[in-house]
Amino acid sequence: MDFVTKLNQAVQKNKSLLCVGLDVDPARMPDKVGIFEFNRAIIDATADLVCAYKPNLAFYEVLGNEGLDALKQTVDYIPDDIPVIADAKRGDIGNTAKAYAKTLFDNFGFDASTVSPYLGFDSLEPFIQYREKGVFILCRTSNAGAVDFQSLHCETQSGSRPLFEIVAAKASQWNTCGNIGLVVGATYPEELKTIRQNHPDMPILIPGVGAQGGDLALAVRYGVDAQGKGIIINSSRQIIYASREKDFPEAARRAASTLRDEINRHTAIS
Amino acid sequence: MDFVTKLNQAVQKNKSLLCVGLDVDPARMPDKVGIFEFNRAIIDATADLVCAYKPNLAFYEVLGNEGLDALKQTVDYIPDDIPVIADAKRGDIGNTAKAYAKTLFDNFGFDASTVSPYLGFDSLEPFIQYREKGVFILCRTSNAGAVDFQSLHCETQSGSRPLFEIVAAKASQWNTCGNIGLVVGATYPEELKTIRQNHPDMPILIPGVGAQGGDLALAVRYGVDAQGKGIIINSSRQIIYASREKDFPEAARRAASTLRDEINRHTAIS
Repeated sequence: MDFVTKLNQAVQKNKSLLCVGLDVDPARMPDKVGIFEFNRAIIDATADLVCAYKPNLAFYEVLGNEGLDALKQTVDYIPDDIPVIADAKRGDIGNTAKAYAKTLFDNFGFDASTVSPYLGFDSLEPFIQYREKGVFILCRTSNAGAVDFQSLHCETQSGSRPLFEIVAAKASQWNTCGNIGLVVGATYPEELKTIRQNHPDMPILIPGVGAQGGDLALAVRYGVDAQGKGIIINSSRQIIYASREKDFPEAARRAASTLRDEINRHTAIS
Repeated sequence: MDFVTKLNQAVQKNKSLLCVGLDVDPARMPDKVGIFEFNRAIIDATADLVCAYKPNLAFYEVLGNEGLDALKQTVDYIPDDIPVIADAKRGDIGNTAKAYAKTLFDNFGFDASTVSPYLGFDSLEPFIQYREKGVFILCRTSNAGAVDFQSLHCETQSGSRPLFEIVAAKASQWNTCGNIGLVVGATYPEELKTIRQNHPDMPILIPGVGAQGGDLALAVRYGVDAQGKGIIINSSRQIIYASREKDFPEAARRAASTLRDEINRHTAIS
């Protein structure tokens, strides 16, 4: 089953546009709980409340082989009907991009990945060629430094436009297999609004609510498509570190349930 | 010892501006030779001919834990007076970038890393803060897709300039610790010339000669600083796959020696 179908079915089944970011950090996890053990408990507690999970590779790589083994176990453990997005932000030239795509899609078994656009089409093509997999191109990221380059006004044949809009336009043009989405941070609601207006049908992965301070109501209102869907709202720390005690799974479930319902209040989904 | 000092000493000692890219690929390696075994033989055969080694992470990640173990062994094995650059092209937000930097610099022990600029300053800062380590920011990459975004003309206070020039200018501005360099492909010699003119002192890592078809003479002539140095010319496949037979170390040595001398013919270094 291709990524978009799987995503839509999960959205439907769980009435959820919420993605839980599995960004493990032993310093913030309860004592004596292993990486996979932690993720398994979070997944068990939230699998009926989410439309996707999104582990960021950095937090597993830093733990060495043990971390990467736990990541593989985690991807395998997540129920088959919930898509798993690799937050990897890779971007390299042809042959190398091919190796990255193989690692994420074939070896780990992710359903989708985030990628970075700076190197252009041939760096993304090896990902896009996996037609069953989703490819989320960084467009307008949630961090403060996003303005350094993404906001620069660039000359195009149809006038001057910010770089992130050109990235979105190119992504749309490259989306011949229907498996491309965009990453737009909740911290830039006006930019999100523009992107959605220009691209009514592309899925948008939205990080930046919660710890990063993005306005949830605006993110949902500006992000959804005409069906009140088409967005994946990611939250990591707010959910997985809702408690550091033994009750962390229940606390994560409460936090996920609250956020899912809050998202739904702003959409037509519930 | 900081990266730039280590690099300059290796350049001096080996009279070399050549970096060998350790991009392992079992399909192109001699039969029955393990990953680390292959790298060790290449290193033994070329360590007096190079100024740096540069493994690309993608080719190790795709081999799983075995690949990453071989990468760690390789970094450890490279003589202490030769800097090792992680070609990782990471780029993520603050906390995550911190984890990537820790993985590469603390865990693997690399002397430098390539990073991707799309997310802006706060995504690079965790790397730059390792003052002893080198940080090569992607500026103008060697691939065909480089034109998609890097060539876009952007508005600045001092007029319209291509994005890659703005990236270089920002990199220069952020270079308060003197540990930032740029990546500019040999396949775009005119762009390399401009970058060097605008930034007389920044080290430039130059991929794209050999298999990718960049013109070596132009790359060296346009890339060097006023002392005839300041560039790191990377070659991977042309050297490490010079032979697929038992004589691969000798073949790699011959290829490295030839390329080093050819580079030196175009500079004041020899």
